Amino acid sequence: MTTCHELSVGEEMYRWATDLFPLNRSLTGAGNRATLAYLRQILPGLSIHEVPSGTSAFDWTVPDEWNVTDAYVMDEIGRKVIDWKRNNLHLVGYSVPFQGSVSLEELQTHLHSLPNDPDAIPYVTSYYRGNWGFCISDQDRKALSDGIYRVVIDTILAPGSLTYGELLLPGEEKQEILLSTYICHPSMANNELSGPVVTAALARWLQSLPARRFTYRIVFTPETIGAIVYLSRNLPIMKERTIAGFVVTCVGDDRCYSFMPSRRGQSLADRVARHVLKHSAPDYKAYTFLERGSDERQYCSPGVDLPVASIMRSKYNKFPEYHTSKDNMTIISPSGLQGAHDILKTCLEVLEHNYVYKATYLCEPQMSRRGLYPTLSRNNAEAWVRKMMNILAYADGTGDLITLADEIGTSAKSCIDYVGQLLEAGLIGKVDGPAMAAGQGAK
Amino acid sequence: MTTCHELSVGEEMYRWATDLFPLNRSLTGAGNRATLAYLRQILPGLSIHEVPSGTSAFDWTVPDEWNVTDAYVMDEIGRKVIDWKRNNLHLVGYSVPFQGSVSLEELQTHLHSLPNDPDAIPYVTSYYRGNWGFCISDQDRKALSDGIYRVVIDTILAPGSLTYGELLLPGEEKQEILLSTYICHPSMANNELSGPVVTAALARWLQSLPARRFTYRIVFTPETIGAIVYLSRNLPIMKERTIAGFVVTCVGDDRCYSFMPSRRGQSLADRVARHVLKHSAPDYKAYTFLERGSDERQYCSPGVDLPVASIMRSKYNKFPEYHTSKDNMTIISPSGLQGAHDILKTCLEVLEHNYVYKATYLCEPQMSRRGLYPTLSRNNAEAWVRKMMNILAYADGTGDLITLADEIGTSAKSCIDYVGQLLEAGLIGKVDGPAMAAGQGAK
Amino acid sequence: MTTCHELSVGEEMYRWATDLFPLNRSLTGAGNRATLAYLRQILPGLSIHEVPSGTSAFDWTVPDEWNVTDAYVMDEIGRKVIDWKRNNLHLVGYSVPFQGSVSLEELQTHLHSLPNDPDAIPYVTSYYRGNWGFCISDQDRKALSDGIYRVVIDTILAPGSLTYGELLLPGEEKQEILLSTYICHPSMANNELSGPVVTAALARWLQSLPARRFTYRIVFTPETIGAIVYLSRNLPIMKERTIAGFVVTCVGDDRCYSFMPSRRGQSLADRVARHVLKHSAPDYKAYTFLERGSDERQYCSPGVDLPVASIMRSKYNKFPEYHTSKDNMTIISPSGLQGAHDILKTCLEVLEHNYVYKATYLCEPQMSRRGLYPTLSRNNAEAWVRKMMNILAYADGTGDLITLADEIGTSAKSCIDYVGQLLEAGLIGKVDGPAMAAGQGAK
Repeated sequence: MTTCHELSVGEEMYRWATDLFPLNRSLTGAGNRATLAYLRQILPGLSIHEVPSGTSAFDWTVPDEWNVTDAYVMDEIGRKVIDWKRNNLHLVGYSVPFQGSVSLEELQTHLHSLPNDPDAIPYVTSYYRGNWGFCISDQDRKALSDGIYRVVIDTILAPGSLTYGELLLPGEEKQEILLSTYICHPSMANNELSGPVVTAALARWLQSLPARRFTYRIVFTPETIGAIVYLSRNLPIMKERTIAGFVVTCVGDDRCYSFMPSRRGQSLADRVARHVLKHSAPDYKAYTFLERGSDERQYCSPGVDLPVASIMRSKYNKFPEYHTSKDNMTIISPSGLQGAHDILKTCLEVLEHNYVYKATYLCEPQMSRRGLYPTLSRNNAEAWVRKMMNILAYADGTGDLITLADEIGTSAKSCIDYVGQLLEAGLIGKVDGPAMAAGQGAK
Repeated sequence: MTTCHELSVGEEMYRWATDLFPLNRSLTGAGNRATLAYLRQILPGLSIHEVPSGTSAFDWTVPDEWNVTDAYVMDEIGRKVIDWKRNNLHLVGYSVPFQGSVSLEELQTHLHSLPNDPDAIPYVTSYYRGNWGFCISDQDRKALSDGIYRVVIDTILAPGSLTYGELLLPGEEKQEILLSTYICHPSMANNELSGPVVTAALARWLQSLPARRFTYRIVFTPETIGAIVYLSRNLPIMKERTIAGFVVTCVGDDRCYSFMPSRRGQSLADRVARHVLKHSAPDYKAYTFLERGSDERQYCSPGVDLPVASIMRSKYNKFPEYHTSKDNMTIISPSGLQGAHDILKTCLEVLEHNYVYKATYLCEPQMSRRGLYPTLSRNNAEAWVRKMMNILAYADGTGDLITLADEIGTSAKSCIDYVGQLLEAGLIGKVDGPAMAAGQGAK
Repeated sequence: MTTCHELSVGEEMYRWATDLFPLNRSLTGAGNRATLAYLRQILPGLSIHEVPSGTSAFDWTVPDEWNVTDAYVMDEIGRKVIDWKRNNLHLVGYSVPFQGSVSLEELQTHLHSLPNDPDAIPYVTSYYRGNWGFCISDQDRKALSDGIYRVVIDTILAPGSLTYGELLLPGEEKQEILLSTYICHPSMANNELSGPVVTAALARWLQSLPARRFTYRIVFTPETIGAIVYLSRNLPIMKERTIAGFVVTCVGDDRCYSFMPSRRGQSLADRVARHVLKHSAPDYKAYTFLERGSDERQYCSPGVDLPVASIMRSKYNKFPEYHTSKDNMTIISPSGLQGAHDILKTCLEVLEHNYVYKATYLCEPQMSRRGLYPTLSRNNAEAWVRKMMNILAYADGTGDLITLADEIGTSAKSCIDYVGQLLEAGLIGKVDGPAMAAGQGAK
């Protein structure tokens, strides 16, 4: 299925992720700006927005900007026993500035480790609280000896701004498809960088198309507060126009495919995702919205109600390396990224062709007269004729292409060519509206 | 689960049933009045209504009143071989007066016994027919020797009235919840007395509440004709106001829980009952309306269409002692009564809180700012946070509390406290109407 | 179940099929006219229509008429190695006239046989193409020796007409039930003649009724082009009036029952067919519309949307003798025809009684007062009382008789007598309209 050309997309994405891995992303700060600057090299039209600290967004306020110059813990003989420069997970996210000497006992109250995964550094944040802390592997923690430790946290937590990226690709129709991914996790690969790089590859492909039916809204923003800020600025138009959307996250490893529905699970995004997964990765793991954890929490919240779902590989919270230093470049792969990319791309291709079709003739048309049907009756049953006739039989102006494909027991993707031939022969036409109306809303 | 206090409700109910057991209830008569007088001691506001014989009620007419002074069969040596004073089941219900001497052969045509249950006296009635008869155990029947028997049936069947009790407990809303139980079976415990005593305990609890959301209509009336008479006098207001109702019957033993739906099985009464049973007694036996047999036959009849279901312990017709002298105080128990009482009480508690809730903020609110959410991200998954967030995520103004609880996979009862906290924090509000509208009607 | 009289219907149908078997039916021609003339003897009012070659019908055109005088292949010593007069399947349908001498090698390009079924003559047609050909058994084909063969195809393919038969039986209501069967296969028994003879027997029975509720439209026409021509002349009135219809095909053998739904499978025809099959032949094989192959392809096409289904015995394409000389009078039987006839007749009987019924009294009526209910309570549970009471309990003016029967877990056919008694006693009435509206449309 994958061609040489397509495999190279996987490799490209993996290379981008490798470049982006060391940057110290958080809710705000220089690491986020550097990430967006890198992505803008891939996506020339990407616009970068700064939202000042203190700005209100629904129930939330944009926090102070956080930047790290240095952070370490030094023992009595001058060894840095914890050093943020070695791995930016070592510093608890949004740690306030601090310099001082503390006993091991006091230091322990600021440390986080994982006794059950002793060689992994955990990922911990402490937003909105005025704390500081360090994360280390449990084995390193146990090796700390009694004594006085010098703690240096050279961070700045001060008014600044939250940064997000946005790419709007206009289509023939005003109706929009949303791709949203987040940039706020430092140095983690499946749960985070797979999302931005797959989204960037899809955006680049969409940009390359000679024509697009739909308008695409592509968003790179910090999780939760970033999505909330973005919604607070764009909700009315998004509610009016969005027919389907996807949170792109955890799309990098090779272990499985996963699906997270919208709140009610019946939107067009849910329908196309389930349909494509059923045909491309039938053993995918279907989660319920009760196991949500990313920005569908905002996009599908009551009153926001956008039709947003997620197609993932190993889902956040469900793979052993999640939120630790082990979620690194070794657990994602070019083929893992490629697989998720291809399935999302198929979803978009199906949506682009997802019209309601209607036969233009009463009764079956005479296919033989058009060279679309063999005349010897013994050959009637051939699969391609059957499929063409099934499309015609169900093209009754009621369901969209996804429904039609489900009704005739095949994949919508595989119908695209047939539908093209039937449109060209004038045997079917497109019907306005109902499919889109049916797909709208997260409910 | 059951506290000392609550256990004593079970014991109280059992004591009431013990007191009421010997009274000779039927469609009409002194036994029914004595039963209602006893219940009025427990429920001070209970009003007692008399409906004269000959009154029309839909397709029916209130029959003559039936009272028994004495009834026996005496053998040639003056022994009372059947004596109504020993067990009022011995006399066929509504037997007409008779005095005379009959041969054993003729007597046999008036006797009822159960060859397959030889030591049980069956319960037989002959309403609307002008018959007389006796019920005895099959073993006693077989012991009768040839000879002439003196039959004395000192009954009065004459114009009088049918008696029923009614308690209306006003609530903040005009919408009503119906509890209906019957008083027409003499000396039987599960199938009958469990119903009036559980209903009385629930009514006493409702009376004790500082405030009630709904109005409660509580009815003690003979089965079939009593329910029909009651409906003929109250149907318009009941159709307008009843959002849910329960026939309380067979709620006394410890063997199982059972459920009888309304005709279409989709009313609010059905929904709350199934929901509470699923969480409190998941192995309950679900019957269909085709196995109905009590006053849901009237409440759910076409055109009446009230939303009435039944939660039972061992259902009428389905336990071996049914309609015999073996359905006595030994097969019901304080804990059996208590269990049914508690489940019905939970149904009423859930209904009192069964609003449609809607989140007041777009996107997730910032829980940490309100002390409702821990700030360290590693603790997010704690069950109580998850439950609170799930309630918020599904509080979208579409479904009532029962639906919401089903959607998030928990019991509505357990959500009541969470909902209270969220209301207090101003994070959700109540939406008017839809849940009630949805619940109306037996269809 | 089958009475002597009814068995004789099976025998009659078998005799008719025997008479019709040798006629050389095709899309057009003398064999079709002879078939219709025979059927008119059974159905006096049958009108026979001729539609000229060249007439347009939706995307199609009525072809030239095809008649065969003689057709054979003769070897060098004057033996007719293939002779249409022995079996009219030998000649490919619509073969153009030809006379000439050909080598075996050239002859082979015009021969059709079945290597996997070496003693069967296949059935092949070549409509709309200007070909000629012969069908023989594979064993006979292999026996042909090298040499020159004399081919004589004495056919006439020239402007004429397409012939169909139509019988309209008026009813009390304008709403119509369609029975459609096809006459275009020469000398095949299950897949074809079973259809016309079962249809003729049903039509004769409908004609014999003292009164019919519905109007019946009964059509005998060539498959595909005949159905399309018929629709092109009658569609508006059929769309307006047809509440249910059946394509009668493959109704002659004893092996199984089969069901082919309409396109959406939810029409009244589908409902009554599935209901009757569930009670009469519960192990029937349910096909989907994706396995369609007869005139439901036209009746259920988009825009035509008639509520047409098929009840069959062994379905076309699914029995080994299909479209070969082995589909002859030995694979159908009087009992096979009778069984299909009886099930279709039951469908029509149920439809004639398929009103929406509604109870006329609130609450249960007093059955004992009307002699419809025993007074001794111990006998209440008897099956007939329960069924009568169930019909009353569900006669709420919402569903038709089929729905009501499904709700109470019994067959609609078995309810017809009960419903008659309840109508007579004035306990239920008929409600106008909804059931019919619900049944309309193939969707």
